[in-house]
Amino acid sequence: MSCTPSDPLSTDVAVIGGGIIGLGIALEAQRAGHRIMLIDPEPARGATYAAAGMLAPVSELHYQEEDLLTLTLASAARWPGFARALADEGYPDIGFRTTPTLALGANAADRNALAQLREAQAKLGLDVARLSIREARKLEPLLSPDLVAAHLIAEDHQVDPRAVAAAIEARLLAAAQRSGHRADETVVRTRAVELLHENPANTRPRTRGVLLDDGREVHAREVVIANGLGATQLGGLPENLMLPLRPVHGDILRLRVPEHLRELCTATLRGMVRGLPVYLVPRNDGTVVIGATAREDGRDGVNAGAVHQLLRDAQALLPAVAELELLESTARARPGTPDNAPLLGRVEGPDGREMPGLLIATGFFRHGVLLTPIAAHIITELLAGVNDPAWDRFRPDRFSPALQEH
Amino acid sequence: MSCTPSDPLSTDVAVIGGGIIGLGIALEAQRAGHRIMLIDPEPARGATYAAAGMLAPVSELHYQEEDLLTLTLASAARWPGFARALADEGYPDIGFRTTPTLALGANAADRNALAQLREAQAKLGLDVARLSIREARKLEPLLSPDLVAAHLIAEDHQVDPRAVAAAIEARLLAAAQRSGHRADETVVRTRAVELLHENPANTRPRTRGVLLDDGREVHAREVVIANGLGATQLGGLPENLMLPLRPVHGDILRLRVPEHLRELCTATLRGMVRGLPVYLVPRNDGTVVIGATAREDGRDGVNAGAVHQLLRDAQALLPAVAELELLESTARARPGTPDNAPLLGRVEGPDGREMPGLLIATGFFRHGVLLTPIAAHIITELLAGVNDPAWDRFRPDRFSPALQEH
Repeated sequence: MSCTPSDPLSTDVAVIGGGIIGLGIALEAQRAGHRIMLIDPEPARGATYAAAGMLAPVSELHYQEEDLLTLTLASAARWPGFARALADEGYPDIGFRTTPTLALGANAADRNALAQLREAQAKLGLDVARLSIREARKLEPLLSPDLVAAHLIAEDHQVDPRAVAAAIEARLLAAAQRSGHRADETVVRTRAVELLHENPANTRPRTRGVLLDDGREVHAREVVIANGLGATQLGGLPENLMLPLRPVHGDILRLRVPEHLRELCTATLRGMVRGLPVYLVPRNDGTVVIGATAREDGRDGVNAGAVHQLLRDAQALLPAVAELELLESTARARPGTPDNAPLLGRVEGPDGREMPGLLIATGFFRHGVLLTPIAAHIITELLAGVNDPAWDRFRPDRFSPALQEH
Repeated sequence: MSCTPSDPLSTDVAVIGGGIIGLGIALEAQRAGHRIMLIDPEPARGATYAAAGMLAPVSELHYQEEDLLTLTLASAARWPGFARALADEGYPDIGFRTTPTLALGANAADRNALAQLREAQAKLGLDVARLSIREARKLEPLLSPDLVAAHLIAEDHQVDPRAVAAAIEARLLAAAQRSGHRADETVVRTRAVELLHENPANTRPRTRGVLLDDGREVHAREVVIANGLGATQLGGLPENLMLPLRPVHGDILRLRVPEHLRELCTATLRGMVRGLPVYLVPRNDGTVVIGATAREDGRDGVNAGAVHQLLRDAQALLPAVAELELLESTARARPGTPDNAPLLGRVEGPDGREMPGLLIATGFFRHGVLLTPIAAHIITELLAGVNDPAWDRFRPDRFSPALQEH
């Protein structure tokens, strides 16, 4: 430890939070020519570490998030290009798969729920094909013959979030190095403690950087808050800005498919099993991800009852799950919001005008992976001064009545 | 790496294998005045790492191992003294608990199985008290009211195998250090490859040491083979000696009891749930161990179907298991033998007489923790030239017809 205060670090854009959202924003900002600095004590070890990586705007409609549909569809449409751009830059291994999703029901009530959902999906012009169980088992021979409903959603794909995060971090570091910047000043593995402002007492303060946990200051032209649930812990947030984030925990399992079951399944399977959702995402590397519960009990550890439920219900879809090797049980909290939509964009300052130098991208709940390309695009456009009013409904200050009064 | 052959290491007793059996033998041998050397690349990371640590000769009778009863009862009787001796030497934290065991049945068939077992136990003079479910729930209020049978076994206790292993290793190293021996020549973290013999071509060879994986030789007056399933991999075993060991995998879970359930249970619970065994062992540190399956599929990883079954059946005993935090899922192979009894003692050499310098202690199957004190005692007696014929039925060469002919 040095006893003399160190020189401040400086960058164009400081991104607080190295989950997939922060990484995606840093990536697009770097491509747009900004020098970036990503600040996170452990990048990609939060909700991103647990995420299954389904890119599923159609099946996710299930959870009463119709408002989000324009955003999720826009982001799903961007994923192929997002993946291709990374591949063109030398990072092809992100597990992007355009295999379809099968929605499955285990009993009559589940079948009714899926039928209602399909009606809603059809009304919105979304492509969902009803299959017989026989047809579904032609596609996926190991599906349980006891299932009673199957829908094919051709456009819901998947990606491997850990692989995406690793690819983006490597890309950020490689590009920074080519520009002569240090790796440890591109991805700064420290906690961000507080926003720094010019004229803090003024009605027109301007964010000018971030104070780090180790006492260093980062000076930045723009600061993006993208650290999920951690956003509310930051000092120096605009007064009266409400970020109504709550932790919604999910338990998720990773399993290995043994050799004799290599053809376990190709599609992503999403089941309703006696009223409870379960999904099963097969990966290119011979593993399978099974999730996910949504708990609001505030407990950080893996819940034994949830693991039991996931294994039970996954076997109801695919009995051969009993043969798999359990590699990992993980629980993480996702940042939920009152309307299940993200908090994304600039915020109003005390004078009722947009606060310069500050952007927010959090509250992505269960859609962080899907929404990464569009969030990165929207934030990078805002950095360039371009504001698409289509996304105003996701402004981060929409739950802050005092600010909305202006 | 040195290019000159290093000097051989030397010791009185070389113990191959640092599971709880090898550690226990090394401990007693050291106490008896022998200089010991324990050889294991990763001590206590095999079956010991998974073991629940039940000291349960009475309830274990369930598994048709009546022949073993004299040995298991003798070892259970030694456990309090074994624990006390470690405590007196400064190692009290081994989780030895004299709380009782409850045997529980979930349906009518399970009740019948338990009743038959109780009859067999009573015939052998073992103390098993039948309880009503109401009485059982007075002892353990969180037991499921749906259970239909409960027996109290006051004498079946428990210990924490990882804590025992850590205590013994620390004790071995401390005593060796006091005698001026190096830690890395007391616990040698390398694989043993081959037994070394004097007069190997002779009808009267004598084991004189062990060749290590790193090329070093260990010279020893006596070599004890205590590396579980690894025993059959050793070079230089006596010709015609059959060690019929097979891997029997067990899956086991470790969970944390949340604050609001601190009084989850006090007794060890052993259930028969629709014909399948499950046990739940509460530890002093606020964790609970749930096991254990017995698989002979040869697969080393944790089996998803087994985890599902364990969580399901543990909840049938104690519904609050659903509230616990899943900390760890582990699978390990135990060394099974044709009669489920250990291979313990000296072996006959080519000339029909006991082979000097060689002892074997493996094949402890699911009884390794329980049998540690008696195995350590028997081997240490043999080192002193004392052979108790009561234990001849567990001789390691009993499955070697060629040797038995002499």
